[in-house]
Amino acid sequence: MDIATFIGILVSFGLVIISILLGGDGAWFVNAPSLMIVFGGTMGATLLAYPLRDVLSVFKVAQNVFMYKSQSISKLIPMMAGFAKKARREGILSFEPQLDEIEDPFLVKGIQMAIDGMESSAIENVMTTEIIYVEERHRLGADIFSTMGTFAPAVGMLGTIIGLVQMLMQMENPSQIGAPMAVALLTTFYGTLLANLVFLPVAGKLKTRSKQELLFKQMVLEGVISIQSGDNHRVVEQKLKAFIAPNARMSASGHPAAA
Amino acid sequence: MDIATFIGILVSFGLVIISILLGGDGAWFVNAPSLMIVFGGTMGATLLAYPLRDVLSVFKVAQNVFMYKSQSISKLIPMMAGFAKKARREGILSFEPQLDEIEDPFLVKGIQMAIDGMESSAIENVMTTEIIYVEERHRLGADIFSTMGTFAPAVGMLGTIIGLVQMLMQMENPSQIGAPMAVALLTTFYGTLLANLVFLPVAGKLKTRSKQELLFKQMVLEGVISIQSGDNHRVVEQKLKAFIAPNARMSASGHPAAA
Amino acid sequence: MDIATFIGILVSFGLVIISILLGGDGAWFVNAPSLMIVFGGTMGATLLAYPLRDVLSVFKVAQNVFMYKSQSISKLIPMMAGFAKKARREGILSFEPQLDEIEDPFLVKGIQMAIDGMESSAIENVMTTEIIYVEERHRLGADIFSTMGTFAPAVGMLGTIIGLVQMLMQMENPSQIGAPMAVALLTTFYGTLLANLVFLPVAGKLKTRSKQELLFKQMVLEGVISIQSGDNHRVVEQKLKAFIAPNARMSASGHPAAA
Amino acid sequence: MDIATFIGILVSFGLVIISILLGGDGAWFVNAPSLMIVFGGTMGATLLAYPLRDVLSVFKVAQNVFMYKSQSISKLIPMMAGFAKKARREGILSFEPQLDEIEDPFLVKGIQMAIDGMESSAIENVMTTEIIYVEERHRLGADIFSTMGTFAPAVGMLGTIIGLVQMLMQMENPSQIGAPMAVALLTTFYGTLLANLVFLPVAGKLKTRSKQELLFKQMVLEGVISIQSGDNHRVVEQKLKAFIAPNARMSASGHPAAA
Amino acid sequence: MDIATFIGILVSFGLVIISILLGGDGAWFVNAPSLMIVFGGTMGATLLAYPLRDVLSVFKVAQNVFMYKSQSISKLIPMMAGFAKKARREGILSFEPQLDEIEDPFLVKGIQMAIDGMESSAIENVMTTEIIYVEERHRLGADIFSTMGTFAPAVGMLGTIIGLVQMLMQMENPSQIGAPMAVALLTTFYGTLLANLVFLPVAGKLKTRSKQELLFKQMVLEGVISIQSGDNHRVVEQKLKAFIAPNARMSASGHPAAA
Repeated sequence: MDIATFIGILVSFGLVIISILLGGDGAWFVNAPSLMIVFGGTMGATLLAYPLRDVLSVFKVAQNVFMYKSQSISKLIPMMAGFAKKARREGILSFEPQLDEIEDPFLVKGIQMAIDGMESSAIENVMTTEIIYVEERHRLGADIFSTMGTFAPAVGMLGTIIGLVQMLMQMENPSQIGAPMAVALLTTFYGTLLANLVFLPVAGKLKTRSKQELLFKQMVLEGVISIQSGDNHRVVEQKLKAFIAPNARMSASGHPAAA
Repeated sequence: MDIATFIGILVSFGLVIISILLGGDGAWFVNAPSLMIVFGGTMGATLLAYPLRDVLSVFKVAQNVFMYKSQSISKLIPMMAGFAKKARREGILSFEPQLDEIEDPFLVKGIQMAIDGMESSAIENVMTTEIIYVEERHRLGADIFSTMGTFAPAVGMLGTIIGLVQMLMQMENPSQIGAPMAVALLTTFYGTLLANLVFLPVAGKLKTRSKQELLFKQMVLEGVISIQSGDNHRVVEQKLKAFIAPNARMSASGHPAAA
Repeated sequence: MDIATFIGILVSFGLVIISILLGGDGAWFVNAPSLMIVFGGTMGATLLAYPLRDVLSVFKVAQNVFMYKSQSISKLIPMMAGFAKKARREGILSFEPQLDEIEDPFLVKGIQMAIDGMESSAIENVMTTEIIYVEERHRLGADIFSTMGTFAPAVGMLGTIIGLVQMLMQMENPSQIGAPMAVALLTTFYGTLLANLVFLPVAGKLKTRSKQELLFKQMVLEGVISIQSGDNHRVVEQKLKAFIAPNARMSASGHPAAA
Repeated sequence: MDIATFIGILVSFGLVIISILLGGDGAWFVNAPSLMIVFGGTMGATLLAYPLRDVLSVFKVAQNVFMYKSQSISKLIPMMAGFAKKARREGILSFEPQLDEIEDPFLVKGIQMAIDGMESSAIENVMTTEIIYVEERHRLGADIFSTMGTFAPAVGMLGTIIGLVQMLMQMENPSQIGAPMAVALLTTFYGTLLANLVFLPVAGKLKTRSKQELLFKQMVLEGVISIQSGDNHRVVEQKLKAFIAPNARMSASGHPAAA
Repeated sequence: MDIATFIGILVSFGLVIISILLGGDGAWFVNAPSLMIVFGGTMGATLLAYPLRDVLSVFKVAQNVFMYKSQSISKLIPMMAGFAKKARREGILSFEPQLDEIEDPFLVKGIQMAIDGMESSAIENVMTTEIIYVEERHRLGADIFSTMGTFAPAVGMLGTIIGLVQMLMQMENPSQIGAPMAVALLTTFYGTLLANLVFLPVAGKLKTRSKQELLFKQMVLEGVISIQSGDNHRVVEQKLKAFIAPNARMSASGHPAAA
């Protein structure tokens, strides 16, 4: 689990729990039916809006995201520069035996197409299509969690209205409305909690990860096209460094070593 | 009915009904005039905003969507690869007698234009226009349901204000406001329920389906252009696989078989 | 008046009026000063945001929209196909004497430019500019009504706050706040009513009509360019049918007849 | 001051004042500290978000906008047509002595570049850049007022919460909460008033004016390019009329006269 | 610290503090647990949504932004015009020894590539990529603060609901709810305060600064390309002045001096 996620969960849920325990009986906030209606209602609305397969897969994606090991953009630049050197010296075909050693499948695919002799514009076309549709699938994941973050407070409010109606219908003595009104508020509590400390942050994390991955893929695309067109390794380096922050460039220049 | 829809309806409405029955008399939540004003007012506002024909057709579309059998993207790729093989061996004209066997009308249209000898750019132009306007019509459908999802809570609030004004005008004893206030809240209840468990999820589903259908059409377009320009069946496959997720590619490569 | 508009007004306002009359004295909801402040305040804010001429013209446009007779897209396709036949047989100049018989001024303008011998790209440029700025002017109309739909509830809330302050300042006996509070709520009632059953639906209708008109103009543009470049009448038909829904194509193919 | 602005201010503020005076003592709504916290807090937040120079300049711009004399689009078309005639007869250099007589500096700049012999694409490039950044600066102005329109109700709510907390802390007799609660509501009143009758309408006006000015500049650009490329004066006229509404064209055709 | 920021903080926080002190005991508004839950919960949700490194770096960026010394756009234009003169007289290579004297690293990079003999389109490509990804990183910063501005009021509301539930559960005498309700409102107070007087204005400032920096970089790009293609110094000046407001041009023309 990445450290930010761990701290984030600890801090936000910890503070909520502390403030619940400080003010009275913690059991007041545990109400299984209220939780069930909010979580279930939100999931129900989400399943109406998206295919089952997408909803299930997005939970797996979300799990991965929090265990995620970021692709090393800083390693990519010297590697591509090294490839450029080799390609100019020994030709693009010399990569064929080495393809298995490259980890990233998107890079493998790009170099494979260059080896196969596809034209530069066709390679760019295929790789850009892949990037566009990877982005599309990522956005679907973030959208599902955003949707849950929109439905949760609404379903919470629905539960509160149900509770209010029931309370008002039975009300005889206005001074006794305390407890039922508190219970009615619990669904709003759960809905707000789930939306703001779970669904919306996860949607945000998925968007952030997606941007990182797309940046990586965009740099791979730029690098492969640049290598295929026979660019000097310094030019390749310069083109790729344009994608990253100046203060990250130092570490990324590295030493392409004797390639 | 697709399984996600079924589960979604069951879970969300089931939980609402359970939480209503647990807390008191279920009849408190059945109020025909309140339901009528919310549903009728929402429909009325929608009919003011959209032509009658579009509103009616969108209900039919929504019905279809829940019965929908997804076009098989995984079958499309080996089929197009097979077509590419055949086109290179026997020429594009050899498809003429087989056109009736192809199910998808958009694919038939594309191949027909290739047989007719239209230029690649003209075919792309016509097919892209069709994709753009299919998207436009799909968006109209989703927009109508989104609009209903916006109007429903507003009309519900309108009903609640009407109820509150009537209650306040007749109020003599503040301790007797329970029942009329509960009734006033019912329109807000219906409005929130319809928006979040019906209209907005359906709008979401229409958008999801639209994306799938447009992806399919986009792949057909790419495939037809690629076949017409005489691409190798492996290149066609590679171009089309760029559209789909890596883990879906395995099943999609299949065996184009002896075509 | 188109039928959807008529039904829409009848249903939505009818239901509001019924629910007002069922719950008590209808006169409770008639309050001229409240209505005046909501409608006047909304108009005032709108006049601050838009030029007088635009606000006045948008009311005229809105009136037309509800009386609107849709341009027949289904008639356009066989007509353009017929023109294509004639143009190939007798040349584009043969349209000169017939220009008066064509109803749509945008089509007349397009053909006139073709007759005048302007280049295809120049014609497309002029017609596209016109489409873009027609869209711009339509959007202005819809924006003005959307703006009114945003201001109306805000001004309604302003009126309610004024009423609450006045009530609270004079409050001596909490049990007598019923009537003044009901009156304070009326401005919110009017604001919500005007926004959701008048301004926002009208804005929606203007957007819908604009899309139809722009689709028609786009098809005219495509047709004129296609005819000028000497396309076969079947190609013109195919290009134009790409704009419309498959189930609308049957009726649109018609019989271009002997032109 | 343009007439719409005058009517708008009169109607909206007039109605608010009348409804305040009708319901009780007008002094209830005059509360200097409340007004100060809302206006000051809004300005403070705005100064945190934007540079001082931009905030000051936008107030000057807003002032101008309400005194604004619209650039005459209807006069532009015959003028440009006249220029086209002259340019074809006497050459583009013949404009040199007349440059001082042209009012609009953007038009002067365009013709100057044509006289200087810059290429058509370079002129288009420079003028388009200027249009893009004029739009950018206009948008900044509208954004500042929109931001104030967002902050004002939020700061108003902040003031109301402060008032409520103070009231609740001192509350002994629930029947005496009237006056302090009314005072607490005043900041919300000021925030809503400022946002909806001042800041948001002004932001809207700035956007409207910006669109008019950009349309004018776009037409100047199109005209200069068209004249430089030696277009006939009728073609120039037709190109420029595409930008404006059909019913405005009649008056705009005028009589280019003997130029 | 720039003057607008200083005034903004002084005015907005000063007014809030004054209005707190005028209405009663200032200590009512100091509640460490409430502040902790709002600030901590907001930070927790933000850390779930963004990587730790990005959240930390954005705080550093925000700090810089308020100490920021704006890059002088007015000095850029005469400098670039001077460079153009020198380049035409002595050739682009003559800049090599002077590169160290140029402050802006983006400009150095551009000229370095020109000296290296890279083609105009390649230079534009690299510099545009850098501008796009600088914008991307700036937007990330503004997004993080906007996200905090969205979470803060939601977490504040969560705290208020917790307080209300606790109050209602313990309520025996409705006349004693004053103080606990006031405390419950404090989290909403902190959430609204942080969002509207801290997080959202800072997000706005980051966006404003980003626009200025991107404008500067865009002008550098335009200038370098123009110089490399051998444009006259007057043309360079004219191209760059198109980016800035007419009233700022006077001071920017300056005297390129004897270069």
